[in-house]
Amino acid sequence: MTDKKPVQIRMSDYPATGNARDIWRVTHDSLRPVEDGEVLVRLDYISIDPGMRGWITNKRSYMPPVKPGGVMRAFGVGEIVESRATGLAVGDQVTGFTGVQTHGVFKQENLRKVGIPGVPPHTFLSGLGMTGYTGYFGMTDIGQPKEGETVVVSAASGAVGSIAAQIAKLAGARVVGIAGGPDKCSYLIDELGLDAAIDYKKGDISAALNANCPDGIDLYFDNVGGDILSAVLNQMNYQGRIVVCGGISQYGDFASAAGPANFMTVVTHSLSMRGFTMRDYMHRVPEALDWLVPAWKERRIKFREHIVEGIENFPNAFDMIFDGKNHGKLLLKLG
Amino acid sequence: MTDKKPVQIRMSDYPATGNARDIWRVTHDSLRPVEDGEVLVRLDYISIDPGMRGWITNKRSYMPPVKPGGVMRAFGVGEIVESRATGLAVGDQVTGFTGVQTHGVFKQENLRKVGIPGVPPHTFLSGLGMTGYTGYFGMTDIGQPKEGETVVVSAASGAVGSIAAQIAKLAGARVVGIAGGPDKCSYLIDELGLDAAIDYKKGDISAALNANCPDGIDLYFDNVGGDILSAVLNQMNYQGRIVVCGGISQYGDFASAAGPANFMTVVTHSLSMRGFTMRDYMHRVPEALDWLVPAWKERRIKFREHIVEGIENFPNAFDMIFDGKNHGKLLLKLG
Repeated sequence: MTDKKPVQIRMSDYPATGNARDIWRVTHDSLRPVEDGEVLVRLDYISIDPGMRGWITNKRSYMPPVKPGGVMRAFGVGEIVESRATGLAVGDQVTGFTGVQTHGVFKQENLRKVGIPGVPPHTFLSGLGMTGYTGYFGMTDIGQPKEGETVVVSAASGAVGSIAAQIAKLAGARVVGIAGGPDKCSYLIDELGLDAAIDYKKGDISAALNANCPDGIDLYFDNVGGDILSAVLNQMNYQGRIVVCGGISQYGDFASAAGPANFMTVVTHSLSMRGFTMRDYMHRVPEALDWLVPAWKERRIKFREHIVEGIENFPNAFDMIFDGKNHGKLLLKLG
Repeated sequence: MTDKKPVQIRMSDYPATGNARDIWRVTHDSLRPVEDGEVLVRLDYISIDPGMRGWITNKRSYMPPVKPGGVMRAFGVGEIVESRATGLAVGDQVTGFTGVQTHGVFKQENLRKVGIPGVPPHTFLSGLGMTGYTGYFGMTDIGQPKEGETVVVSAASGAVGSIAAQIAKLAGARVVGIAGGPDKCSYLIDELGLDAAIDYKKGDISAALNANCPDGIDLYFDNVGGDILSAVLNQMNYQGRIVVCGGISQYGDFASAAGPANFMTVVTHSLSMRGFTMRDYMHRVPEALDWLVPAWKERRIKFREHIVEGIENFPNAFDMIFDGKNHGKLLLKLG
């Protein structure tokens, strides 16, 4: 069936504190047999995403949390090594909610083929995957940047933010990115071509926003929540829009993440705030791919990947994303 | 010119604490002469509104704050007693930002005539005035309730909330009102015909919402912010809408009113939040009147007024609105 013993990363229980270090268990369980309509997939890459923090929080959310003892939920990409499904053949590249494991048996309808000539399969876990679609729909469908507007994007060097920021730039907006550290800020200017970059680790974000947004802020693409959201709120223009996409700074205590301290600005400045997850747009993924794939091939948009090797390094990779230590979309390479 | 000495209520300075008790000064200054294009108005009623708290807070907002020493800003309605303006005649009823004073000289363009047969002029400070328009536009233009939806309105017996709640009811929604005390709750059911009323003073708003909104909450018209907003957020349906209209519970510390504790629900449930003030809709007031005046005459919508007499009672009336002691739109009757 498979040449190597399968390996799984399981969540033993929900983390009692913000630190999830102790909850991971490695198992080597055999796979169940492949039944009609199913395939066996050898996973090659796993996507590590901030949203995972919500999946290990025992609270009503946009998805049920992972069950204690279950394989950790994750997107993955891999190759079919055995098929009893009519629409999928051995050798096909597929993606889906595969979990953090080296191999898995899946129903055909839970996988999507990702074979596009000239596009490496793991790319569908990064810029051409869920994070790319998230940046695409959040900016084009909700944010709707217009020429001449000032757009601020937080976590702008990240997997979602970098796509969102580049789309706003292509729309003709003045785009100011917020990121942590000089390397990420240089990347925003030199590689992505943003108009300005703010290093939040230097402190006084309000002064930096004020200096870099002389006409105020029309649109804020929020990936982090917390203090940065509060600082941006104070400089939003009348009838400004806020796309609320994440809240990485709050994921450590996801269930009780507090709103901005100066919330009444929403009323006094007639702001609109729209939260979303990719759940809202799953039926429109082909639309995102139609735009993203040629834009990436023609280098109108760029993205970076940060690849960690070995399934045993999943706990380290998981921690990296909350410490901001990854440069680009974090992927776990297996086998 | 006038038969009585004019009286003004002035703000001596911005309140140092949440309590505004000590900032009011009564003056008896003479009026400046009426010049070309101006009129002298004898004010009959002054509107007391929660938004006043923002006007005496020294912070950038949708309007500049009142200047220390200046007449307190307010809407008023009165009768023209002297006119040097071509469009306004002695005896005309007018409304506008008149300030808290018994008489005032105003430019013609800053006033609006309010003479509609069968409608008492002071009604244009209550259900047919700014608070009525606020409820109307907030619910019809932003909220857009649909038949069968569950709509929750806080401060539902208040001047804005009662109009908003009745409009949602007329749209065919199940409407649950939140108010303080048994009298206000009876009013919601018996007079306004809402489907359920929650007395927030009884505690455990979450349990009451759960009991009265078995299908979750599709639309929340928020007049209060604070803990009630947090409780509602936890029971919002996927892609629910929140109209953020006020934040009375936060006005005491307006400048730093905190957002809801469970802000990440905006992301996980794909919620939209839209803040607004009447500033956004001033150009559409005739549209609101076209709907509200016949609806009120035909008793499809109702509203209550709470009238306090005497300009010297302004400080008491101002405090009442934040203590929730008024039943209906609070007006100050002069002279």
